[in-house]
Amino acid sequence: MLQTTAYKALTSDTLSTRLGELTSLTSRVGTETKDWKIQEVGDGNLNLVFIVEGSKGSAIVKQALPYVRLVGDSWPLPLYRAYYEHEALVRQAARNPGTVPEIYHFDNDQALIVMEFLSPHTILRHKLIAGERVQGLATFLGTFCARTAFRGSELSMKSSDKKTDVSLFAGNIEIPAITEALVFADPYFNAERNHHTPELDDVVNELRQDVELKTRVQELFMSFASNTETMVHGDLHSGSVMSTATDSMVIDPEFAQYGPMSFDLGMLIANFLMAYFSQPGHRSEDTLDEYQEWILAIISESLVTFEDEFTTLWNNERTGMLYPATLFEDQGHSSQAALQSLLNHLRTEAMGYCGIEMHRRTLSLAHNADFEEIKDSAFRASLEARNLMMGRELILTSDQILDAGTLVALARQYNKGDFL
Amino acid sequence: MLQTTAYKALTSDTLSTRLGELTSLTSRVGTETKDWKIQEVGDGNLNLVFIVEGSKGSAIVKQALPYVRLVGDSWPLPLYRAYYEHEALVRQAARNPGTVPEIYHFDNDQALIVMEFLSPHTILRHKLIAGERVQGLATFLGTFCARTAFRGSELSMKSSDKKTDVSLFAGNIEIPAITEALVFADPYFNAERNHHTPELDDVVNELRQDVELKTRVQELFMSFASNTETMVHGDLHSGSVMSTATDSMVIDPEFAQYGPMSFDLGMLIANFLMAYFSQPGHRSEDTLDEYQEWILAIISESLVTFEDEFTTLWNNERTGMLYPATLFEDQGHSSQAALQSLLNHLRTEAMGYCGIEMHRRTLSLAHNADFEEIKDSAFRASLEARNLMMGRELILTSDQILDAGTLVALARQYNKGDFL
Repeated sequence: MLQTTAYKALTSDTLSTRLGELTSLTSRVGTETKDWKIQEVGDGNLNLVFIVEGSKGSAIVKQALPYVRLVGDSWPLPLYRAYYEHEALVRQAARNPGTVPEIYHFDNDQALIVMEFLSPHTILRHKLIAGERVQGLATFLGTFCARTAFRGSELSMKSSDKKTDVSLFAGNIEIPAITEALVFADPYFNAERNHHTPELDDVVNELRQDVELKTRVQELFMSFASNTETMVHGDLHSGSVMSTATDSMVIDPEFAQYGPMSFDLGMLIANFLMAYFSQPGHRSEDTLDEYQEWILAIISESLVTFEDEFTTLWNNERTGMLYPATLFEDQGHSSQAALQSLLNHLRTEAMGYCGIEMHRRTLSLAHNADFEEIKDSAFRASLEARNLMMGRELILTSDQILDAGTLVALARQYNKGDFL
Repeated sequence: MLQTTAYKALTSDTLSTRLGELTSLTSRVGTETKDWKIQEVGDGNLNLVFIVEGSKGSAIVKQALPYVRLVGDSWPLPLYRAYYEHEALVRQAARNPGTVPEIYHFDNDQALIVMEFLSPHTILRHKLIAGERVQGLATFLGTFCARTAFRGSELSMKSSDKKTDVSLFAGNIEIPAITEALVFADPYFNAERNHHTPELDDVVNELRQDVELKTRVQELFMSFASNTETMVHGDLHSGSVMSTATDSMVIDPEFAQYGPMSFDLGMLIANFLMAYFSQPGHRSEDTLDEYQEWILAIISESLVTFEDEFTTLWNNERTGMLYPATLFEDQGHSSQAALQSLLNHLRTEAMGYCGIEMHRRTLSLAHNADFEEIKDSAFRASLEARNLMMGRELILTSDQILDAGTLVALARQYNKGDFL
C-alpha cells in the first residue's frame, strides 16, 4: 500500500498518453488512443471518473483524489482508499457474482482502478427522481445485502480468514472517519460543515434537543465503530446503484469496512424512503401515488428478500464458527428460532441506521439530489420534515418494526404529515 | 513478529547460560549466574515460567511454548502470542499503572518476557480455596476492569490510534480461537475435549437440550468474535490475579484481544461465583458462611466499583469520538441517562459472559481447581450443579440483573439448591 511512484491526477488530456500502453485497457477500448473519446463524469464527492471510449469498446478509469472533492483540498484524504475499494470489489464479486463492475486493472501507486463501463446503466437516484422503474430491483438489492452480509461474516467464513481481513481493513482509518463524523455526530449538533433548509429550523432544533434520540444514535455509533461482523459496502445508497430498466449493479465500495451486518440494508432503505418523501417535488398528482407506492414496494420487497435470502444462506451455507450445526442440527435441534432472533436483531439495527441516514442526508454535509433538486425551499422543507420525523421514530422505536408492512405503513402515515 | 533466530525452549539448566549476559536481567538478579536459583513454576496451560533468584533480587522469565502445555504437542500454538502478551502488558500498564508486572526485557524470537517477580504474592485462586482474604481486592479488580475497558475504547482513545491497534491485534488469530472453541462451543455439545463430573450427566444433558440457552450463547459468541470495543485481558479469572493479604496484581494477558467492554468483568465474576459455590468442599461449617459471604461481598463490590469508576471516567475522560460532549454537555444536555443505558448494557452482557464461563469451566477442557480439588465426585457434582444452573439463569435472564444485590441474592438462592 506504499505509494512508490509519484501519484499524479489524470486529466482528460493526459489520460490517453499515460494509459495508452496499458493492455488491460487497450484490449477493451482499442489501441488507437488518438480515437479515444474521454469524458470526466465524476459526480460523486471524492474521485475522478473518466469514461474512455474507443473503437473496440469502453471502460471506466476511476482515480482517487488526495482530498474530498466536495470540499476541496482543505480536507485531505489518503489515496490508499483506492486499494480498499479494489479489495472490496474483489470480495463483493466473489460473494455475489455479477453484481459489481468487472475490474480490468488496478494501479496502487496512482490510486487508479480501470473497470467495466456500465452501459446503458444510469445512477438509480436519477431514475427515482425521474420516476423511472427498474424491474427486479428489490430482488437484486435484498439479495446483494444478504449475500455480502452473510458470506463476509463468521457465519460463513473461516474465522482465521475473516480476522486476517479485519486486520487488513482496519488499516483504512480516514474513510470510516468520514462516516463517523458526518453520519453519527454532525447531524445532532450545529456542526460547521452542516447545512439544512432554513424552514426546518424548528424541527431541527427539536431533534437536537432530544437526548433520548441522541443516546440511541450513539449506541448505534458505538456498534458501527466497533462491530466487525462483516465487510459492508459502507455507502449503499441509490447513488451507488446503476440500473437500466431491467438490470442493476452496485458501484463505489470505497467506504467498505468491517461493520454491522445490518448497516447496508439500513442505509439503502433510508435512501428509498427519501426518494419516497421527495416525490411530490418531482411528480404531478396524476402519477405521484402510483410511483410512491412503487417505491414502497421496492422497500418492502428488499427487506423481505434480504430476510428470505439470509434464511436460505443460513440453511445451506452456515459453515462458519457461529451458530454451528454441531450445536443445533447435529443434535436434532432446529436453529430456526435462533435465526429468527438474529433476523429481528438485524432488522432492529437496520431501522436505527436507516433513521440516522435519513437525518444526516438532510442535516449534515452531503445531501441527496432527491430533496436538493426541489427548488421551492418551503415546499422542500415540508417534505424533508416528514423524512426527519420518520427518521426519529425509526431510531427510537426500531425494535417495533416487526416486518416490512409495518415499515411502509409508517412511511405512508408520515407522508401525510405536516410538521412545519 | 517474524521469528528470525531459532527459537529454543529454555530449561532450568540452560537458562543461566542463555540469559546470563542479559543486563536487563542481571541488573535485577545479579551477574553471578552460578549462584542463580532457577525454578520452573508454570502451572498454567500454555507456557514455561521460571523464577530466577540471585544475590541482588529476583525476576520471572516467561517463555511461550509452541503448543498447548495442557494438551501437548498435538495442539500446536504460535509463539507470536508472547508478542501480543507483551503489547497487552504495555497497554495495561499505561491504562492502569502499577497493576501488572513491570517488564524488564522482551525477546520476540525466543517468545520470552523477563518481568517482575511478584513476591510474596500468590495466585488468588489458591487463596480462595484456602479461605484467605485480600484487602482491597474488589476495589482493585473493579477499577482494573473499568479503566482498561474505558481507556482502551473509543470513549477515550483517538479513533485512529484505536483502529490501528485493532488491526495489530487482529493478527492474533489462534489465541482467540481457543476461547472461541473452548468457551462458546464445546460446553454446549459433547465435544471430544470435554470432561465433566459423571454425576452431572442429567444436568449437562438438560443444558445441552436447551435451545434457547444455546441461542443466547451464540448471540454472545457473535458479539465476542466481532465486537472490538476495547482491548480485553481475555482470561481474567482468579488464576490471573496474584495477591498478598493487602495487594493484588493482574498477570498473564496472553489472551488479550479487542473484544466487548463487558467481557473481563463477566469472566471475573464467574470465577468468584465458582469460588463461592465450591467452598463447601474446602471449609468446615464453622467458617463456611462467613467466607462465602466475603466472596459475595467481593463480587458485589467489584461490580459496584466497576460502575462507579466507569462513571468517573465517563465524566472526566470522555475524549473519544463516542458519546461526545459536543452532543451532550456542550449543549447543556446531561449524558447521565446515556451512561446509565450503557452501564445497563455492559452489565447485561457481563452477566451473559459470566454464565458461559461458569459452564465452560465445569464442562469444557480447562476446569478450575476450585471444583477439581474436591475429591468426592458426588459432592463435587452437587456443587457444580448449582454453578451450572445459576449460569443458565444468568445467560437467559441477564437483563434482569439490575444491580449487585440482585446478583448476590441469586447466588445465595442457588447455593441452597439441590439439582441432582
